[in-house]
Amino acid sequence: MRIMVGVDVGGTKVVAGRVTRDGRLSGEPQVVPSGTRDVTALVDSIVEAVGAVLHAAASAGESASGVGIGCAGTVDAHRGVVVTSPHLPLIDTPVAALVGGHVGLPVLLDNDVNAAVWAEAQVGAARGCRHVVMLALGTGVGGGLVLDGRLYRGATGAAAELGHMIVVPDGEPCRCGARGCLETYASGRALERIARGLVHDLPEIEARALRAADAAGTLTGRAVGDLALSGDPGALRAVEEVGRWLGIGLSNVVNIFDPEMIVVGGGAGNLGELLLAPARAVVKKTALAPGRDRVRVTSALLGNEAGMLGAGLLAWAGARARS
Amino acid sequence: MRIMVGVDVGGTKVVAGRVTRDGRLSGEPQVVPSGTRDVTALVDSIVEAVGAVLHAAASAGESASGVGIGCAGTVDAHRGVVVTSPHLPLIDTPVAALVGGHVGLPVLLDNDVNAAVWAEAQVGAARGCRHVVMLALGTGVGGGLVLDGRLYRGATGAAAELGHMIVVPDGEPCRCGARGCLETYASGRALERIARGLVHDLPEIEARALRAADAAGTLTGRAVGDLALSGDPGALRAVEEVGRWLGIGLSNVVNIFDPEMIVVGGGAGNLGELLLAPARAVVKKTALAPGRDRVRVTSALLGNEAGMLGAGLLAWAGARARS
Repeated sequence: MRIMVGVDVGGTKVVAGRVTRDGRLSGEPQVVPSGTRDVTALVDSIVEAVGAVLHAAASAGESASGVGIGCAGTVDAHRGVVVTSPHLPLIDTPVAALVGGHVGLPVLLDNDVNAAVWAEAQVGAARGCRHVVMLALGTGVGGGLVLDGRLYRGATGAAAELGHMIVVPDGEPCRCGARGCLETYASGRALERIARGLVHDLPEIEARALRAADAAGTLTGRAVGDLALSGDPGALRAVEEVGRWLGIGLSNVVNIFDPEMIVVGGGAGNLGELLLAPARAVVKKTALAPGRDRVRVTSALLGNEAGMLGAGLLAWAGARARS
Repeated sequence: MRIMVGVDVGGTKVVAGRVTRDGRLSGEPQVVPSGTRDVTALVDSIVEAVGAVLHAAASAGESASGVGIGCAGTVDAHRGVVVTSPHLPLIDTPVAALVGGHVGLPVLLDNDVNAAVWAEAQVGAARGCRHVVMLALGTGVGGGLVLDGRLYRGATGAAAELGHMIVVPDGEPCRCGARGCLETYASGRALERIARGLVHDLPEIEARALRAADAAGTLTGRAVGDLALSGDPGALRAVEEVGRWLGIGLSNVVNIFDPEMIVVGGGAGNLGELLLAPARAVVKKTALAPGRDRVRVTSALLGNEAGMLGAGLLAWAGARARS
């Protein structure tokens, strides 16, 4: 059986696995810590993960036709270059060529959320949809666009920065240098900030768990999310507020793209309806009819595997386009 | 010579002309008042304009291969139906079929700003660009998207409502029912509102002309624009403020679409650099690098003819796709 090696390159780890033509994972993925010292270290970690997958493939009687890599950052997929990346030592780095030189297979490179939305549209939450927008809510917010059945990357690979839609002029400062970006109101980092505000604003009985976490120095977005999932009233308030802000972003997405489906993934995707119900309520109230009533807003289905699966599926699509 | 009949259907008039394969207008356009009483009246006015063009074409020895219609409102181009239209008596109306039944030619229907952006991308300000976003600033704000060289309409024809991006939560009330839409800050109507505010806020010497217009009941967006073009300091302040708001919308457009070019048209497009210079300054400050430095923001080139030319060019593209 022929497979593609799908690789998800993140700030802390490289995850690689064998992706079948129909978008299934064959066997277990391989995980290698991301080399973050310099380009060589990062490329070495990718090559190591790919090598382990190729070894496992050979043992299973599978043969690899190519490699697809999804990488955080601005990626010029056409040239196989990572232009910039927030957590990796890459600036205008020809990652596809560097990895290809080691592994001797065709290597396709794309942005990690592009890979994830492609996987969700092919075999995940948006299977069968031709117009899909994905927001990946982690520490920040990434975006991915499938428009008319094709991945949309923009003129230079920098499109879909949905987290940097300005929703509040002169609002919260964003790490990008602007103010009031969606990601300063609807992300893991925003959840932390909003929860910290509630520590003081909420009545003692509701704020107890948040206050304890704040005092212990453990009040992170993830911690607030976990508290909300366990039913803590203060944390639920914080998630609901983030959900309403997310709803403003989603209203804009509905009015701009008229998508069939919006997929919310990333770490905050685990919050499911706690986050999506208030977001949907805002969409119903503020987006234009009839889109607001027709669009489906749903959690991602493929979780952490979306990037790896999507990278493999993009490699399959690239191979089809070449043949 | 073969031509297509390009038709621009607006709230007050129907403009139709002969569009050559290479996007030139042959002869003079025909103008007929829009029938706004009911569907029959509107279709009759379109058919009258098309008939006059066909007559002129025959006199000039030209033969029409089809009709392209650009119409204000939400249009399902695939089905040839106007879903809703703000100024026309059309609700789920099969305009293409109704007109086609009278004129005996293939009729293609699309949204008017879709037609305009298509024309600007083919033969106008964005000629040669594959990633173009147009904002048409009139009373409200319309949008059009050429992505990867193709017109993007969304799942149901309702995409590109860029005027209804929310940029101020709980901001100015919008006619769409939401609050804080871009069009409440950057449109002809917004220019009027902002100028009216300046009547009271500016020193007497700067506000004199605005104050006189306000007292005379002639303080419209168009009047403020004309005053600004004549150098009136109060009107210039109003246009500059609208330009800064436009810049927030354009920053979002840059981050979302990574376009090569943004074309600003509609009535406010005539304000040129008065509007675009402050908008560009905001883009440079708030959009993400490197897009903010690379994107070109320019006035539309085709003016009032963009919709008609684009409708004709879309008919040509449709004919090529069929053959």
